[in-house]
Amino acid sequence: MSQPKLCTFFAEGKVRYGLVRPGGVVDLSARLDARWRGLKEAIADTVLNQFVEAGGRLPIDFSDGEFRFLPPIQAPEKIICVGVNYPDRNEEYRDGQAAPGNPSLFVRFLRSFVGHDVPLTRPNASHQFDYEGEIVFVIGKPGRHIPESDALGHISALSIANEGTIRDWVRHAKFNVTQGKNFDGTGSIGPWIIPYTSEDQLADVRLTTRVNGEVRQDDRTSRMIFSFRKLISYISTFTTLVPGDVILSGTPTGAGARFDPPRWLVPGDIVEVEAEGIGTLRNGIVDELNQP
Amino acid sequence: MSQPKLCTFFAEGKVRYGLVRPGGVVDLSARLDARWRGLKEAIADTVLNQFVEAGGRLPIDFSDGEFRFLPPIQAPEKIICVGVNYPDRNEEYRDGQAAPGNPSLFVRFLRSFVGHDVPLTRPNASHQFDYEGEIVFVIGKPGRHIPESDALGHISALSIANEGTIRDWVRHAKFNVTQGKNFDGTGSIGPWIIPYTSEDQLADVRLTTRVNGEVRQDDRTSRMIFSFRKLISYISTFTTLVPGDVILSGTPTGAGARFDPPRWLVPGDIVEVEAEGIGTLRNGIVDELNQP
Repeated sequence: MSQPKLCTFFAEGKVRYGLVRPGGVVDLSARLDARWRGLKEAIADTVLNQFVEAGGRLPIDFSDGEFRFLPPIQAPEKIICVGVNYPDRNEEYRDGQAAPGNPSLFVRFLRSFVGHDVPLTRPNASHQFDYEGEIVFVIGKPGRHIPESDALGHISALSIANEGTIRDWVRHAKFNVTQGKNFDGTGSIGPWIIPYTSEDQLADVRLTTRVNGEVRQDDRTSRMIFSFRKLISYISTFTTLVPGDVILSGTPTGAGARFDPPRWLVPGDIVEVEAEGIGTLRNGIVDELNQP
Repeated sequence: MSQPKLCTFFAEGKVRYGLVRPGGVVDLSARLDARWRGLKEAIADTVLNQFVEAGGRLPIDFSDGEFRFLPPIQAPEKIICVGVNYPDRNEEYRDGQAAPGNPSLFVRFLRSFVGHDVPLTRPNASHQFDYEGEIVFVIGKPGRHIPESDALGHISALSIANEGTIRDWVRHAKFNVTQGKNFDGTGSIGPWIIPYTSEDQLADVRLTTRVNGEVRQDDRTSRMIFSFRKLISYISTFTTLVPGDVILSGTPTGAGARFDPPRWLVPGDIVEVEAEGIGTLRNGIVDELNQP
């Protein structure tokens, strides 16, 4: 299945966006950025399909290796992450608490993410560096108090995240996981966005995470505790969702913290998060001091 | 003590910034916005003092009543809030846990805040609406891994917040307070920013919150569990602080949830948060459906 792929990338000193084609990218921003500064603005104007059509008729501007992927949405108003959303994941916390009635939510800043094929940074502050493969959706249509029946119509595009986590720092203080989820460059989003056109793209997606080729996480979105509909409806109870908002829908069981002893990521590891029909997001690991 | 006050405001259909003077504001953006789009950009260029000087020589453009205050920093990259930072506040949680070793941190979106003199919105989802008066500081100089000894040099300006909270929604899920802290328009920041010039402005500031004139919170920054230096140094362990980042430094004991029975905010209430040398932030309360 080959779905159209739109990406944000860096080439020749500039942030650009375009259509991914075999062998490279078509630089749509070179032709259109007076009208749309980025994919966020294109999403707000519901022109992703026009971008795909336009890009399909144009030659490749940058070949593979001549550009670097960035997180697809630059400067989203919000990046909201769902904490515990797959079976067995609640038990991983070993706190004897029942499964939650509402999704746990936290926030990440864009600077905690890099793009596809860019190494994640293991910070000096802690080496408890863990992966979390997730399905990402991007809001297209704004709304508040969105009923579940209308919720999927607010999605514009799909992507993938490695919601990389510094495990001991999520419990560094009395409340909230903010710190452990926001070390600079510890997560990734991408490689691209796929325009959302039908519920089939989300209903039963297989999501797998591999470390150096070994499968660590493997589950399907049909088993999510809180459905995509529920997440959108619930989040919009308190905040207005706007075009370009990025939502990470939670990770399956099997994070490195689950093993005994835990299996943390180390420099040289390769983490791949694959979501059926969306793509494969791949990142290496480097130490903070060795960061290029 | 009359310190210079710079604000962001809405007048004649446009977001503007300027100098607050007795009786009104000088619209600096009308003269300067080709160079600085907002106070965030002015902070990045360290020109707040030039703004104050320029504004002092100009006439008032909008008189009181002709403009509406907005949160001073528009589109900050981050708004980070400190959870438990004054004596007795930890005990309010009645969970038998010792005082924390590191500050609890969470994130609010800008759309959860309004400006001075604009009513806060009590949501339909819950009427457990509580106030939290706080001192705010805005980052001027970017940095990561900032030592405590250099930390105050990264502050550009000071402000005040009512970190209004939907109390039952901070524990709506297994982890994290995100939901209860992010209902649209439930908090406020302002009225203005005061340029930061000396540690005296922060060292022992009296912070009081009044509801309909009755003092509910009353403490001093000298008693903070985590100092301003510590907060900046700690936060910069994981994320790069950048100009315009807004940090809310925690609230004293005395929130409405502390009373038995709790004393929630109701429509018609007036909440005032006063910080010595910075100003007084005042907001009414309206119900979601009655929002103008």
